[in-house]
Amino acid sequence: MNTATLLISCPDRKGLSAAIANFLYTYNANIVHADQHQDETENLFLMRVEWDVTDFSLDMSAFAAAFQPIADRFQMTWSVALSARRPKVAIFVSKYDHCLVDLLHRHKSGELRCDIPLIISNHEDCRGLADYYGIPYHVITVTKDNKAESEQAQRALLEASQIDLIVLARYMQVLSHEFTASYPQRVINIHHSFLPAFEGAKPYHRAFARGVKLIGATSHYVTEVLDDGPIIEQDVMRISHRDDIDMLIQKGRDLERMVLSRAVRAHLENRILVYAKKTVIFS
Amino acid sequence: MNTATLLISCPDRKGLSAAIANFLYTYNANIVHADQHQDETENLFLMRVEWDVTDFSLDMSAFAAAFQPIADRFQMTWSVALSARRPKVAIFVSKYDHCLVDLLHRHKSGELRCDIPLIISNHEDCRGLADYYGIPYHVITVTKDNKAESEQAQRALLEASQIDLIVLARYMQVLSHEFTASYPQRVINIHHSFLPAFEGAKPYHRAFARGVKLIGATSHYVTEVLDDGPIIEQDVMRISHRDDIDMLIQKGRDLERMVLSRAVRAHLENRILVYAKKTVIFS
Amino acid sequence: MNTATLLISCPDRKGLSAAIANFLYTYNANIVHADQHQDETENLFLMRVEWDVTDFSLDMSAFAAAFQPIADRFQMTWSVALSARRPKVAIFVSKYDHCLVDLLHRHKSGELRCDIPLIISNHEDCRGLADYYGIPYHVITVTKDNKAESEQAQRALLEASQIDLIVLARYMQVLSHEFTASYPQRVINIHHSFLPAFEGAKPYHRAFARGVKLIGATSHYVTEVLDDGPIIEQDVMRISHRDDIDMLIQKGRDLERMVLSRAVRAHLENRILVYAKKTVIFS
Amino acid sequence: MNTATLLISCPDRKGLSAAIANFLYTYNANIVHADQHQDETENLFLMRVEWDVTDFSLDMSAFAAAFQPIADRFQMTWSVALSARRPKVAIFVSKYDHCLVDLLHRHKSGELRCDIPLIISNHEDCRGLADYYGIPYHVITVTKDNKAESEQAQRALLEASQIDLIVLARYMQVLSHEFTASYPQRVINIHHSFLPAFEGAKPYHRAFARGVKLIGATSHYVTEVLDDGPIIEQDVMRISHRDDIDMLIQKGRDLERMVLSRAVRAHLENRILVYAKKTVIFS
Repeated sequence: MNTATLLISCPDRKGLSAAIANFLYTYNANIVHADQHQDETENLFLMRVEWDVTDFSLDMSAFAAAFQPIADRFQMTWSVALSARRPKVAIFVSKYDHCLVDLLHRHKSGELRCDIPLIISNHEDCRGLADYYGIPYHVITVTKDNKAESEQAQRALLEASQIDLIVLARYMQVLSHEFTASYPQRVINIHHSFLPAFEGAKPYHRAFARGVKLIGATSHYVTEVLDDGPIIEQDVMRISHRDDIDMLIQKGRDLERMVLSRAVRAHLENRILVYAKKTVIFS
Repeated sequence: MNTATLLISCPDRKGLSAAIANFLYTYNANIVHADQHQDETENLFLMRVEWDVTDFSLDMSAFAAAFQPIADRFQMTWSVALSARRPKVAIFVSKYDHCLVDLLHRHKSGELRCDIPLIISNHEDCRGLADYYGIPYHVITVTKDNKAESEQAQRALLEASQIDLIVLARYMQVLSHEFTASYPQRVINIHHSFLPAFEGAKPYHRAFARGVKLIGATSHYVTEVLDDGPIIEQDVMRISHRDDIDMLIQKGRDLERMVLSRAVRAHLENRILVYAKKTVIFS
Repeated sequence: MNTATLLISCPDRKGLSAAIANFLYTYNANIVHADQHQDETENLFLMRVEWDVTDFSLDMSAFAAAFQPIADRFQMTWSVALSARRPKVAIFVSKYDHCLVDLLHRHKSGELRCDIPLIISNHEDCRGLADYYGIPYHVITVTKDNKAESEQAQRALLEASQIDLIVLARYMQVLSHEFTASYPQRVINIHHSFLPAFEGAKPYHRAFARGVKLIGATSHYVTEVLDDGPIIEQDVMRISHRDDIDMLIQKGRDLERMVLSRAVRAHLENRILVYAKKTVIFS
Repeated sequence: MNTATLLISCPDRKGLSAAIANFLYTYNANIVHADQHQDETENLFLMRVEWDVTDFSLDMSAFAAAFQPIADRFQMTWSVALSARRPKVAIFVSKYDHCLVDLLHRHKSGELRCDIPLIISNHEDCRGLADYYGIPYHVITVTKDNKAESEQAQRALLEASQIDLIVLARYMQVLSHEFTASYPQRVINIHHSFLPAFEGAKPYHRAFARGVKLIGATSHYVTEVLDDGPIIEQDVMRISHRDDIDMLIQKGRDLERMVLSRAVRAHLENRILVYAKKTVIFS
């Protein structure tokens, strides 16, 4: 089924639902899912509506023009996406390959509806895997001294492939503010702790030292403040006194790939709205 | 906030969302939550919409008359409930008091929006608890021979209090078909297994014998087939070889009260739609 | 079954297991559980062994004298407890009663093997509940100015009842260092976050503001640093954008009582060893 | 660290712990983990003990002869394994590759300590994956008519490689009784339901029809009764009304690979004792 998905956030007002429903009905939309939420504290209206475009009588290239008057009337922030248009995703990776393996296998099996035109790494380690899945693998070495040039090279690749989303699959370099500012809500990271606990480096070591009974992983959009962006997905796993740091790292790998893949999937399926440093994840 | 909640299921057709949204907008409804789902297999439209009735210009006593034309047009099965009208709940219990303790404490703390005019039991054991919470406690002994009379006595009490919902909080008697048929989708039971595993008697003993690694509990509407009604909520808990049957029963108590209370709450908040022997639980 | 439980921690050395097993065998112990763990990083030997004392030929009053030579040889920190001796527990509570309800019900149902000679509160709110369960309820008002006197009054009560364990069941006052130092590893608190995230006040509000996808609760021994003592048990629960702060607080109540009761139970069953600011919880 | 692991089950008797501990101490064993459990119902003693063999003064080739007198005295069923000896594992797979991908990646990353000399399949589909990981891939077609011959060919391969463990990674053929009887407690299967619910074919379809709120997966040893062998590991995942059968199958893949890999790992680390159609999994 080819569907269109409309995401809307705006000040809450009466008549919003009716205006949107009528607009879609006018063009004969066959709605397959709709979910709306009102945030009382922020007085916000948040909505996701998805419809089958088979019988939709409005050409999607004309959608923006047709919808804008309603958007203006209600001061909407909105976006629309077609399931037929597969987003272009770049994966950044360093040496740890467990998230990459997972993403590539899910992509191949059809779980992640996107194209992956390239993988960028600061190391050669994962090239074999990229080759197996037939995805171009670019090594751009990053040092203390060449950060600006390396990011320039990365951005050239991203622009050449018209990348929509960047997934940091345990990429061990911090991106510059300029970089992340160029891809707002379009860079997803996986952090190996239950944020906001253990922000920054070596979270498993610190979790071990603190003696927590559960370890966690958090996927979030990258902003200019490290490990502080809007959280998309989190999960935890029970550990015991028998688990040393190596075992925490091993168990954590399962968490990391589950949490990252769920976050990427929610993004690709246009289920995420960001507001007030938080996310709404429509189910 | 005083809200109204409309639950709708009907054959899926274009224009449904618009018709409902327009109807509500006509009377100046301030929608606070709306969620709709289309079941493709069954070609069903399923919706829950909740609005603040403060500015609603249609008197709720006139709602049915005003809405029925739309309901007829789309062949809707529908119901509307006001949060201001607290449903009347009867709890049935035998000797085990853990679910009863939990329900009464949640009720007192305001988590369960309902009135509880009576508790019915076939034993005296829980009378002290009922007294503490100030709820009339009726003992109706049930034997092999007096089932019909005891049910008659129970139903007289239920009718006298105009009971909307019956919660079987580990009530150890099987109700007759006549009884359950009189309260369709209005009797909630808790079964101490992860249904459909271990239907019937002694599920913990059978779980122990089978060597399962998780035990479960299931809350469902009671139908005339034992342990076969539409499932509302389920959950599980990990066990180990160190847990003997007594420990399974103990651990299971936590599961039972969590699962039952979530199911009762979903019912009281009008979040449940039943179709095709399944439930939709709107979140 | 009346059992004895021996908890041991000491520098790891060969022959430890044999020395302990031989000692127990000499006196005809019937071991029902034994679990030992070696912490390589700290070079520690940690053990819990539990035996049926029915046929044990050493009078338990003579145990210490008989065992001390072995303890000295291996520099053991050790303790032994008899299941027949029920620890004496004091519960501290303020206004929130959900943890208290839970502990008292578990106590009554036999899940928590202990005596509860008294409840201490800075408010009258929970007196009815204490009365229902037949437990003396002492109100000791705490103000900015009377902290020292109020603690003195509390400690007089604790000493009069020879209290072994203090459970802070959402007690909203910070105990002084003198107080907690007098009860090392004998004061258990429940904190309503997944520590070390959201230490200190109003964790649900901060969790809401940060937009986490799971809320947590942590039970720990109280030390002189707030929310920093050795963690005994933690758990989490999924939340969604539909949950406002009130709902977080409600959902959190279920977490708090589960986590606190598991921690108290582990303590009462002598399953906890503390070392290096961590706990080993023998299962 | 090179360790030896001893697994013991026998009738419970006093002196067992001392006899085993003394035996190990006699030969200067440095115990790193020990865990014992008494099953009262069956009057069984169950133990796992693991020691560093660096200083162990008994040559492991002479272990059996030295230990047998103790084993005889206590009627022990026992086995000993060296971590240095990597078990040989054969993986059987059909067309679904998600479990295979997972096992091979875990193997490569060092999580599964074993050798995988061969993969056997009734289809060509997974050959590319096997090639990528450098593991010989044998296709043995199975039809209604050639079952005996195909099993003969499979067993010839298994015997040639001296296979210790067979992992059915979504292998869609039922093995004959002769086959499974030849590998008792050495064939691990993954079933895509929470057994004993939905034994047999199409469990996701039946779970969907029944309207369960959680789906599960179960890993078990294969016996001659289908889906009835001793359960090693189980887990579940929450689903909602928004999940159609395809989504159940997708979500289930994550469960299947987690559950299967944990079971295989427990087996490889000699953590499993089977008795009374159940397993003890030492943690």
